Amino acid sequence: MWQRNAPPSPQPQWDDESRPGNIEEVDILQLACPVPIGEPGKITLAHGSGGKLTGDLIRQVILPAFRNPLLDKLEDQAVFAMAGGRIAFTTDSFVVSPLFFPGGDIGTLAVNGTVNDLAMGGATPLYLSAAFIIEEGFAIADLERVVASMQRAASAAGVAIVTGDTKVVEKGHGDGIYINTAGVGLVPPGVEISASRARPGDKVLLSGFMAQHGMAIMARREGLDFEVELESDTAALHTLVQAMLRASSGIQVLRDPTRGGVASTLNEIAQASGVSIELDEESLPLQLEVEGLCEILGLDPLYVANEGKLIAIVPAAETDAVLEAMRAHPLGQHAALIGEVGDGPAGMVYLRTCVGGTRMVDMPVGDQLPRIC
Amino acid sequence: MWQRNAPPSPQPQWDDESRPGNIEEVDILQLACPVPIGEPGKITLAHGSGGKLTGDLIRQVILPAFRNPLLDKLEDQAVFAMAGGRIAFTTDSFVVSPLFFPGGDIGTLAVNGTVNDLAMGGATPLYLSAAFIIEEGFAIADLERVVASMQRAASAAGVAIVTGDTKVVEKGHGDGIYINTAGVGLVPPGVEISASRARPGDKVLLSGFMAQHGMAIMARREGLDFEVELESDTAALHTLVQAMLRASSGIQVLRDPTRGGVASTLNEIAQASGVSIELDEESLPLQLEVEGLCEILGLDPLYVANEGKLIAIVPAAETDAVLEAMRAHPLGQHAALIGEVGDGPAGMVYLRTCVGGTRMVDMPVGDQLPRIC
Repeated sequence: MWQRNAPPSPQPQWDDESRPGNIEEVDILQLACPVPIGEPGKITLAHGSGGKLTGDLIRQVILPAFRNPLLDKLEDQAVFAMAGGRIAFTTDSFVVSPLFFPGGDIGTLAVNGTVNDLAMGGATPLYLSAAFIIEEGFAIADLERVVASMQRAASAAGVAIVTGDTKVVEKGHGDGIYINTAGVGLVPPGVEISASRARPGDKVLLSGFMAQHGMAIMARREGLDFEVELESDTAALHTLVQAMLRASSGIQVLRDPTRGGVASTLNEIAQASGVSIELDEESLPLQLEVEGLCEILGLDPLYVANEGKLIAIVPAAETDAVLEAMRAHPLGQHAALIGEVGDGPAGMVYLRTCVGGTRMVDMPVGDQLPRIC
Repeated sequence: MWQRNAPPSPQPQWDDESRPGNIEEVDILQLACPVPIGEPGKITLAHGSGGKLTGDLIRQVILPAFRNPLLDKLEDQAVFAMAGGRIAFTTDSFVVSPLFFPGGDIGTLAVNGTVNDLAMGGATPLYLSAAFIIEEGFAIADLERVVASMQRAASAAGVAIVTGDTKVVEKGHGDGIYINTAGVGLVPPGVEISASRARPGDKVLLSGFMAQHGMAIMARREGLDFEVELESDTAALHTLVQAMLRASSGIQVLRDPTRGGVASTLNEIAQASGVSIELDEESLPLQLEVEGLCEILGLDPLYVANEGKLIAIVPAAETDAVLEAMRAHPLGQHAALIGEVGDGPAGMVYLRTCVGGTRMVDMPVGDQLPRIC
């Protein structure tokens, strides 16, 4: 947890002279005792000591970004009142490489990813935690950029970051910054969504174009330039979910096809529900640029990560109502019916190909794209 | 979040033959397609892919350890019913080095640390998340040892690990394993505890011997052997807190003096409450072995981390009742009155030394003991 470290001391010391975000300007002649001086503007091990520099980092970089009444107390824990009911609780660590990419950065992902894990249970996301593992030597300016992204994403999603933690590890024991977010939300009465609720005859909907996040990361990693820059689709999906829940009380399954892509997520659902799923290749929404890049790199877009898309499984009779609600939402404009649930072998996913064949879409064994989120 | 990855496929594949904990026994002749084969018994990048090997790791190592009805569902989020009221929410990442030490390991710390952050708000800890960032090449046997420790600590504390996440980073971008836990608890009506509630005249209590965790880690790092092995004091403190709350409704402040030790924690409290605190050196509970090792290594025990101790600040009239309740609890047998809150300069902590002098106990600027938790 973040605590109220580093009380300003009454005698003149360097932190009395520093301005927020200006940790690097230490006048070493004014220091009363030896301190670990790292490179200016870089994270040092002392920033993770729980002492003065940890407090400075929290007060100068993190609090100004996330500021809210619960966090500002800097107790060991955030305490908030909640009505009774069903609480949703989730966590994810983010280790994406590179940290910054077109359409977002690790901070954007860390907030949207946890908001979406709550939303996929039909929950209204409310409060997030944020825990940083920072590598010694990481630029404080980059940390400021990441926390600013987190705050933008949190504000956009209507959630507050109310508790957190900062640790520092030696150079060579991290990769810039890793972020964990956990989240708490409230599931409205009557909502019952689970990967185990798909039934034969149900329809499979996808909220938009596949594989954008993964291919944006790959394009950046490989240094590929295109006329149109590929952007991550990272987004908070809870308002889309709420619109869908208003349109239909019959939504059975919601999942965001992140790591492992649409193929892995559908395999999980088919397994959890004990059903088969048949996809229609022609109906899979895919942008031309993404399709092209997948071909160049030899990747199957069905297995490439998304960060702002969801899969919904709904009874056939509700399909039109849910699709209409999705298409009326900015994050669901390109929603499509991509397949249906069958009573074939439990846990199997098939693809009806454009040329009329059928192939199995298995769980990936290996790793197409490491460190994608 | 952990999801239901890796459905067992109907055709014969290696995972049908594997037993839990036996991931290394892959018969490569039976494999239908190229898989990334790392060293046997070691974590590979594919274990973090979100595909089949991630699922195997979760089903064979993590679920058997943590098994409970909420986790077993493997949804994107755990959903549980809670009565309305005040919810406490906290997070901590753990990067301790070495991972295993006398008295516990990173898994024990990760559970007890978050349980204690909830307990320091007077909350009853209920549910934890667990997120792992594992370095490629980490021994699966060590992961099994860590999750077994987590489960033992969770059972002992009466909490359930209900949601989680696993990421893998390349060799040289981690240090074996980093663990984040977040926690949710319920604050009983009437309990109002905050670092900002210390008032002049209040007494400062410490629940037992100082500096045990930090010195156990240091002894292990430095390869120092003693007749009596120093053990970490890691423990879950919520039952001690509950006993104290039953004895007195006047407890103002609770904090566990972890990173930065008793000195840093008291500085935080003095600052948050706008008071001074005066400690009595003679009354500080310190074991002879710990005192000796601190002298050898040139460390001040006031600044060394504890993992199973708490500081309580209580009105003078409640001191005896609270101390008696603490001493009647196994984790508070050596509880002591160590000082009092004053109306001196706000944010200052002083020590009345054994020889009759007074010295200032400031926030540490640098880092005595990096990677201590």
